[in-house]
Amino acid sequence: MKNILVTNDDGVTAPGLLALALEMTQVGKVTVLAPDRNWSASGHAKTLHKPLRVKPVSIHPDIEAYNSDGAPSDCVSLALMGALDRKFDMVVSGINPNANIGHDITYSGTVTAAMEATIRGVFGIAVSLDSPLGIAGDLDYSTAAKAAKRAVLNVFKHGLPKGVLLNINVPYLTEENLKGFSITRQGLRIYHDELVKRTDPRGKPYFWIGGEFPTGLEENQTDYGMMKTGYVSITPLHLDLSAYSAFETLTAWDWNKQGG
Amino acid sequence: MKNILVTNDDGVTAPGLLALALEMTQVGKVTVLAPDRNWSASGHAKTLHKPLRVKPVSIHPDIEAYNSDGAPSDCVSLALMGALDRKFDMVVSGINPNANIGHDITYSGTVTAAMEATIRGVFGIAVSLDSPLGIAGDLDYSTAAKAAKRAVLNVFKHGLPKGVLLNINVPYLTEENLKGFSITRQGLRIYHDELVKRTDPRGKPYFWIGGEFPTGLEENQTDYGMMKTGYVSITPLHLDLSAYSAFETLTAWDWNKQGG
Repeated sequence: MKNILVTNDDGVTAPGLLALALEMTQVGKVTVLAPDRNWSASGHAKTLHKPLRVKPVSIHPDIEAYNSDGAPSDCVSLALMGALDRKFDMVVSGINPNANIGHDITYSGTVTAAMEATIRGVFGIAVSLDSPLGIAGDLDYSTAAKAAKRAVLNVFKHGLPKGVLLNINVPYLTEENLKGFSITRQGLRIYHDELVKRTDPRGKPYFWIGGEFPTGLEENQTDYGMMKTGYVSITPLHLDLSAYSAFETLTAWDWNKQGG
Repeated sequence: MKNILVTNDDGVTAPGLLALALEMTQVGKVTVLAPDRNWSASGHAKTLHKPLRVKPVSIHPDIEAYNSDGAPSDCVSLALMGALDRKFDMVVSGINPNANIGHDITYSGTVTAAMEATIRGVFGIAVSLDSPLGIAGDLDYSTAAKAAKRAVLNVFKHGLPKGVLLNINVPYLTEENLKGFSITRQGLRIYHDELVKRTDPRGKPYFWIGGEFPTGLEENQTDYGMMKTGYVSITPLHLDLSAYSAFETLTAWDWNKQGG
């Protein structure tokens, strides 16, 4: 039986994590190790300067779960380095209640947890739900959980190319209304960040990074474009950020160390 | 005159930042905005859940400097969104006292600060020094500072392709002993992380992620390989992580939503 680690960046008590963990019990033996608090937009961290705790927690009778005071990527490191005395075949991270598309990827704790798995040679999948703003009550994670199961089954069947992880974004639709799955490239997020400057009760300035929720460019075959058209977006990502197309240009510059 | 923002992930008082800021005064008007503490291996963060402070600090009579309680990427966001009431033409991040090569890039606050500049449409350069372990006394940042100046002058002269940042790694050599500059691709870091399990004074377990300092594969034309051979490594990076080579394979999988 396959051993599946489930983690996230919203913390071990998040409903998206529980929905994912329960769905994964249909595929293999599930263990949860997730942060003890919310780490959204925390990026890819590695905690080396302090000790990390791993504690058993109750989130559901059918799920063996632990939390840690580390970041999402720390949770993956701890588990894959043996803190739970078992080996894992797959790391699935999510379900994040908001999409992780375009440049979100570099900020996203959900995605960097899957990256950490890839760096450590284990399959990694990140799952996010494009929930609309202003939903009253609980989010419905069932479509996203089923999409995650489809991806996990495929990865166990076919494997992933070396160094590749999957970033999955699921529209907020019932399964019947999904148009299908689409293999996509990373698209372009459009951020609407605004700097809000205020003065505190002691007359000192402070800043919030505020503004409207980010949108994106609805281009064909991109994560954002296909997700907004009703497809589950499956983006294969790798960790080679080299901009090969720039090599020739840069090589022609004057790099004489005596110059300037 | 060009406006240059200097930041880092080690904190505003780090000697590598001062060496970089002083060198940059030969190229343009320099402003420092850097974290008030060490954020090494913190990844690409965006602080949205709390207010951020920006305070003037003294680091050198010739340098106008501020600190912030945000992450390195927050410092860049704050400055580029107008917290210092000026516009910037360039963000230079560093000088980090250790190399940032291979997968280090995704963890590195130094590199993610330059990424944040790129996302916000401003030139971004990260500068790191491959200092040997166990140096007694202060590190010599002069070769790295001069290499950074060469890169900044080139970028101001030629521009950078859209969406591209530069990740610079400098060997710990005197300028005369440098072999030159080399345009490189991202190589492969080899981590030697070990999980250390201990028991605290109250009998409870805790973990450290420990182990030897990471090494790397000395391949030709990679960041690690060329740096170790005595060249300043200049790696153009972009933020499109799509693994295009995996598209065909993944498209052939069974994505029938009824399956599984």
